[in-house]
Amino acid sequence: MKINENYKKLAQSYLFSTIAKKVNEFSKNNPDKKIIRLGIGDVTKPLCKSTVDAMAAAVQEMGTPEGFHGYGPEQGYDFLKEKIQNYYLKRNVKLELDEIFISDGAKSDLGNILDLFSKDNTVLIPDPVYPVYVDTNTMQDRKIIFLEANQANDFLPMPDDNIKADIVYLCSPNNPTGAVYNKEQLKKWVDWALKNKAVILFDAAYECFIGDDNLPRSIFEIEGARDCAIEFCSFSKTAGFTGTRCGYTIVVKNLVFDEMSLNKMWLRRQTTKFNGVPYIVQRGAEAVFSEKGQVEIKENIDYYKRNAFVIAETLKKHNIWFTGGIHSPYIWMQCPNNMTSWEFFDFLLENVAVVGTPGSGFGKNGEGFFRLTAFGTYEGTKEAMERFDTILS
Amino acid sequence: MKINENYKKLAQSYLFSTIAKKVNEFSKNNPDKKIIRLGIGDVTKPLCKSTVDAMAAAVQEMGTPEGFHGYGPEQGYDFLKEKIQNYYLKRNVKLELDEIFISDGAKSDLGNILDLFSKDNTVLIPDPVYPVYVDTNTMQDRKIIFLEANQANDFLPMPDDNIKADIVYLCSPNNPTGAVYNKEQLKKWVDWALKNKAVILFDAAYECFIGDDNLPRSIFEIEGARDCAIEFCSFSKTAGFTGTRCGYTIVVKNLVFDEMSLNKMWLRRQTTKFNGVPYIVQRGAEAVFSEKGQVEIKENIDYYKRNAFVIAETLKKHNIWFTGGIHSPYIWMQCPNNMTSWEFFDFLLENVAVVGTPGSGFGKNGEGFFRLTAFGTYEGTKEAMERFDTILS
Repeated sequence: MKINENYKKLAQSYLFSTIAKKVNEFSKNNPDKKIIRLGIGDVTKPLCKSTVDAMAAAVQEMGTPEGFHGYGPEQGYDFLKEKIQNYYLKRNVKLELDEIFISDGAKSDLGNILDLFSKDNTVLIPDPVYPVYVDTNTMQDRKIIFLEANQANDFLPMPDDNIKADIVYLCSPNNPTGAVYNKEQLKKWVDWALKNKAVILFDAAYECFIGDDNLPRSIFEIEGARDCAIEFCSFSKTAGFTGTRCGYTIVVKNLVFDEMSLNKMWLRRQTTKFNGVPYIVQRGAEAVFSEKGQVEIKENIDYYKRNAFVIAETLKKHNIWFTGGIHSPYIWMQCPNNMTSWEFFDFLLENVAVVGTPGSGFGKNGEGFFRLTAFGTYEGTKEAMERFDTILS
Repeated sequence: MKINENYKKLAQSYLFSTIAKKVNEFSKNNPDKKIIRLGIGDVTKPLCKSTVDAMAAAVQEMGTPEGFHGYGPEQGYDFLKEKIQNYYLKRNVKLELDEIFISDGAKSDLGNILDLFSKDNTVLIPDPVYPVYVDTNTMQDRKIIFLEANQANDFLPMPDDNIKADIVYLCSPNNPTGAVYNKEQLKKWVDWALKNKAVILFDAAYECFIGDDNLPRSIFEIEGARDCAIEFCSFSKTAGFTGTRCGYTIVVKNLVFDEMSLNKMWLRRQTTKFNGVPYIVQRGAEAVFSEKGQVEIKENIDYYKRNAFVIAETLKKHNIWFTGGIHSPYIWMQCPNNMTSWEFFDFLLENVAVVGTPGSGFGKNGEGFFRLTAFGTYEGTKEAMERFDTILS
């Protein structure tokens, strides 16, 4: 048997293991110091009551002959798809039910969608970036061109007519930078994609953090997107589903390449290689869209946004350049005094026992930057910023 | 963007849609007749109480700050892997925890495992067969050689030294034929794989139906399998998880091809393209292994096995050749009077209102055969067999 040789080309990331090692060492040498973690990319608030109640009921159903659910539709139950359809309709995006595919999360689908594309495509990936975009394409041996995101373009790279590519990844609000595209900017990307017959893979996993109605939460708010874009979304950050696993992917029927409907191809892919999301979890996700559920998740999102606000205000006060922090749980700050990302990491840990994520871990353009996240407690975040005050003054 | 052209080669299966159409039509024309379905491949008994209770507790946990679980390990929680490790140990199969990978089901992993293999491999697939094996390889453009399963070899094809292949699929107890390999037969497959440096993809999704301790429930009961086999297993049929979604895949560390560890490659694949099974579901699966859980699932399995027994006894009485039905929920019968699969389907439906699955839907060697399943109710199965008596005498 011959293995997939592309796996040999995958870079090993030591980012999070190196962070853990450094933190453990510090902790051992400084048992009295309370470490505050602002590096965490996972949510910390429990599931909202509506979701817990809906799942509790679904679990009981599954134990009865009348309420038992066996194999469900691979693409998800209508009861959940209807809620998502309605959610999009609020922003005047009309979707048919069979354009919505329920999945076990955006990460899975962002990788799996590549099954539909020939190896013989060029992929445009922003730098810095969520490493999964790069690794999944490396596994399939596609040519990657990096799109330079940097301070000059506010970490919101725009299309360049000189760059020819077939697939482009856009993530807005961005992980790791927290930067958000406006409608005019996304329109330029849509126009570029249409002109180049390219596909936009739009990662909208953080859309719920957008607080300004003028900012697009879905690529389908942009004219022309139906002919070039696929959107990936998730309940992970919206409703704390990181350990509950549910997301959705929008593949509209307009998308036809080489006479093949991507909607039908994706349906074929999912019915062949996936068996759907647990019934119980889909009931939990449905409850997120109830009136009560919406109030409850908003409370959690607002909690995280308040943390982000506290961080942003501190950085402003010290005249530190940053992106994100308003419509995003991420704050992407420039390291002070020309420190490298790892120098600032060590500086923060050793002086004030605060942990963040070195930007260089997300790509070469991340060097000299640092990611802070809003997923900690309010008290911890506030205290971390008070500690920042002592070393940035 | 250039699509994956291999999708154009995928055959459309009209098997289950044609069955549905014929049944609907019959039902409309015969509103008074009670149709009994023995074609169903899904379980019908509700989840056992141990699983329901464990999931109910886990749902409540997820609603509290202390009990909340965010991202879990992509390869599954140790609490579940330890139970599986123990389950294998009962058959003297020693596995390390990091050789066990929890997944959302065998179907997903059977498709996803192909990511590790070069396109440039020849795949050996039995005919008749679970269609997913063929389709997932067609999507990646691998050369497929069919392995002839037929009445002459009791639908248990054996290796042939003249056939060179790199990957072989074995499913035992088999879907759709219910046939089960014994240890001597599997040993021959292991020897063939070792000699040809091939990989056996062993689908053990129906292992819980094996009632004879001399029959292998895992390929790892066979000497040499650690150097050539990957095993796929599932809670779907074991504990009624078809709509709850949990399975596991065993990739041992011995498996090294071209200096690459398949265990490490699979870990890399899963950590990059998958985010783990819901915490709640893993707690439910864990409960299956409790003393009480084992008793409860055995009751359900025995219920289905009793149905299989009723079918098998009826066929024996009428001297109809069949495989399966003892260590399997499937009965694969020869159609009487030289009928084709679809002729027998129509004959059964029109004369006694019983629905099964035409064998020809599973491959060319299925022609002239018919699949009955034991997943219905006992009363329905018994009545269906009484109806068989009236037309087979």
